[in-house]
Amino acid sequence: MTDENTDHHEHSDKAYALESGLVEQILLAVDLQDYPLLTNLLEPFHAADIADLLEQISGGERRAFLGMWQSDIDADVLSELSEGVREEVIDFLPDRALAEAIRDLETDDVVDLIEDLEAPQQELVLDALEDADRVAVEQALQFPEETAGRLMQRELVLAPTHWTVGQLIDDLRTEKDLPDQFYHVMIVDPRMRPVGKVPLGSLMSSSRDVALTSIMEDDFRTIPVLQSEEDVAYAFNQYHMVSAPVVDADDRLVGVITIDDAMVVQDEHADEDIKRLAGLGDESLTDRVISTTRQRFPWLAVNLVTSVMASIVIAQFASTIEAIVALAIMMPIVASMGGNAGTQSLTVAVRAMATKDLTGKNVWRVIRREALVGLANGLIFAVIIGIVGMVWFGMPMLGVVLALAMIANMLVAGLAGILIPIWLDKLGIDPALASGAFVTTVTDVVGFFAFLGLAALMLF
Amino acid sequence: MTDENTDHHEHSDKAYALESGLVEQILLAVDLQDYPLLTNLLEPFHAADIADLLEQISGGERRAFLGMWQSDIDADVLSELSEGVREEVIDFLPDRALAEAIRDLETDDVVDLIEDLEAPQQELVLDALEDADRVAVEQALQFPEETAGRLMQRELVLAPTHWTVGQLIDDLRTEKDLPDQFYHVMIVDPRMRPVGKVPLGSLMSSSRDVALTSIMEDDFRTIPVLQSEEDVAYAFNQYHMVSAPVVDADDRLVGVITIDDAMVVQDEHADEDIKRLAGLGDESLTDRVISTTRQRFPWLAVNLVTSVMASIVIAQFASTIEAIVALAIMMPIVASMGGNAGTQSLTVAVRAMATKDLTGKNVWRVIRREALVGLANGLIFAVIIGIVGMVWFGMPMLGVVLALAMIANMLVAGLAGILIPIWLDKLGIDPALASGAFVTTVTDVVGFFAFLGLAALMLF
Repeated sequence: MTDENTDHHEHSDKAYALESGLVEQILLAVDLQDYPLLTNLLEPFHAADIADLLEQISGGERRAFLGMWQSDIDADVLSELSEGVREEVIDFLPDRALAEAIRDLETDDVVDLIEDLEAPQQELVLDALEDADRVAVEQALQFPEETAGRLMQRELVLAPTHWTVGQLIDDLRTEKDLPDQFYHVMIVDPRMRPVGKVPLGSLMSSSRDVALTSIMEDDFRTIPVLQSEEDVAYAFNQYHMVSAPVVDADDRLVGVITIDDAMVVQDEHADEDIKRLAGLGDESLTDRVISTTRQRFPWLAVNLVTSVMASIVIAQFASTIEAIVALAIMMPIVASMGGNAGTQSLTVAVRAMATKDLTGKNVWRVIRREALVGLANGLIFAVIIGIVGMVWFGMPMLGVVLALAMIANMLVAGLAGILIPIWLDKLGIDPALASGAFVTTVTDVVGFFAFLGLAALMLF
Repeated sequence: MTDENTDHHEHSDKAYALESGLVEQILLAVDLQDYPLLTNLLEPFHAADIADLLEQISGGERRAFLGMWQSDIDADVLSELSEGVREEVIDFLPDRALAEAIRDLETDDVVDLIEDLEAPQQELVLDALEDADRVAVEQALQFPEETAGRLMQRELVLAPTHWTVGQLIDDLRTEKDLPDQFYHVMIVDPRMRPVGKVPLGSLMSSSRDVALTSIMEDDFRTIPVLQSEEDVAYAFNQYHMVSAPVVDADDRLVGVITIDDAMVVQDEHADEDIKRLAGLGDESLTDRVISTTRQRFPWLAVNLVTSVMASIVIAQFASTIEAIVALAIMMPIVASMGGNAGTQSLTVAVRAMATKDLTGKNVWRVIRREALVGLANGLIFAVIIGIVGMVWFGMPMLGVVLALAMIANMLVAGLAGILIPIWLDKLGIDPALASGAFVTTVTDVVGFFAFLGLAALMLF
């Protein structure tokens, strides 16, 4: 990557993406059963890139590839794979190859690797571990999913309060089992409660006789072991933390979470929110047609119910439409504009909740703002669509009806877009998951009802 | 935060959110002009929390608060504020208070602070800096926005290739101007090209006489100074990097980016994608009604054009609808189902592009999958809506027409949802920004045309 061209900024999408030419060469090496060539081609690949490669090739190509490569596969590659492909690969690997791969991982990575696997595969991996590691992994799995306890690593670098810089450095030099990456040394009292942390940078730049307590930071934050991983990621981002001690209910140090794990969680939760807002489940690009169809079905079913409710509203005005067919032509506009305005409001609300920016202090101001924005855009589009309606059908009153219905529905859209997510959140339902269905139901029903109802009143 | 309760997992939304009781106390202290009380209440607050507080209170409360607090305000608080509120606060602060606050920041934070400010405010901040810092900031501002050059810090911790651990530690102990946080020491050759990096952890655990070259990692990645910040964040997440050297076109080391900055960028870009998919600009919760209305207008205007196009399609079948009013009642269902299925597909496509998982290797397989998923769900919903149509109106052929139109539109929705983002990306347009409008235009037009066209053919 050191020869990465600096003009990549222009074509930024392509930086770090797998090159198809290279992928073809790899598949050719597999076809030719040319093991030295394959090893050579894969040598510069990071585990995450090999995982991407495995995900992007077809199932047949994957099996051929693994047939040649199975004894070289690294557990880091397994960690990086999406769930479906990971299960497929673990099934394919001989138990011995799997066991060898798994043993190199730190315990938090093993937890991450196996927590989504089916029970028999979990057993397979656990059996491959050494006793001490298996106990640590099993303990981590006791914590509820998506909590700090699952995310933390248990390998700790500690020092008692009475040590000096020199004592700590000497201790680190003799310690065999240091974690791969650590950035702070935790200072703990005799009851294992964290009292401060010393960044390695400060340690490096202090003389040997300095007391650790004099260079430690004592305004650090601890993370409760049961805190949700989403809140952990929020805290890292909000407070610019690099690593944080995890404590149990008695404030005793039980582990440490580092920013790289928090960044992965942040990415996963943003991805989840984007997908939920679009009515998608936890699907991945490698899922098959049947499983994807099944995952997308529920949202479409909810939308069908919503649409039928809108149709029932329209049916009440069948005779009105029969009399003036222009109403059928124009009616989707009001509903559709409301749906879009409502989606804008609800997305703002869902994001503000995710970033903890919508609180008791500003909620009424935000509700008022959404209503006024809905009203303001409603007025602007009322004028435009009113004129379109008048000119198109030569019926001034049709323009007036369109304009009034537009104002009403855009105002309702703004209000529904903010109130429905707040209400779902109060009920403990994820607003990203469910708001869309409710908001578009409201804007469809109100849109059709306002337009056709006003038409029935004012055009006859 | 150390007394944070561990049962917060149940009410995770509330962890780290500002407590309204506390906010009320702070505002009361401001009302009473009780400076000691205010200082006392704010003492445990992190800069990011004070920024949140400033954003959540009203404009009047903000001015009253700043009137008392201006001389204590920290530049870190300014960094954390959203753009609009930041400009307001900078305008409000006396120049002297602003200058004092700014001087404590590292240069990359100053860049982050001022890059979005208007020119006169930029000048104000630049003038407040010491000469050396101002030059560094002005140099950073030469790089295009949203590139590695803007993101990196220029304070470097370096060592030549011939040093030992002991020489480096001695050097660090005498160095006055070390960055606040650093995790690696870069090893550079005489021409300033990075040849390896030594994690502080390895440095700590090695004896003084060990050569740096023997403990350095040499499979690190460098980041071109013009690389887009989004790709920088992607690389940190993909390769689990903690810090990365930034190099110029001649591969010379010019700065370093750390993971905490990458995490902020990742968060901003996820937020941007979510908002763009919903047709939102770069708005924030603190924007006023007028600016919010203006920001949301363009997307709604695009949607109006889309809706009018759908109406034009419907108008072609005016006489058909006049003859059978049931068509007007049922027609929004087909269009709406297509719109939702299309949104699902396009969201998957946009995400896959953002994570660089959609490449030449798998693009045809993904297109095929989206078409088949659309077709499969189309068949299922065709049966359901066909039966509903038959039963509701007692017209078997209406059910058949509904079913056929549903299949056609869901298939088209799946295809449009994947092909349109790919095509926009090829044209260099952000697919998150524009796909929605195109996809719903297609599903609306095809939905109404297929349903009404088939009805005109088959029901008469």
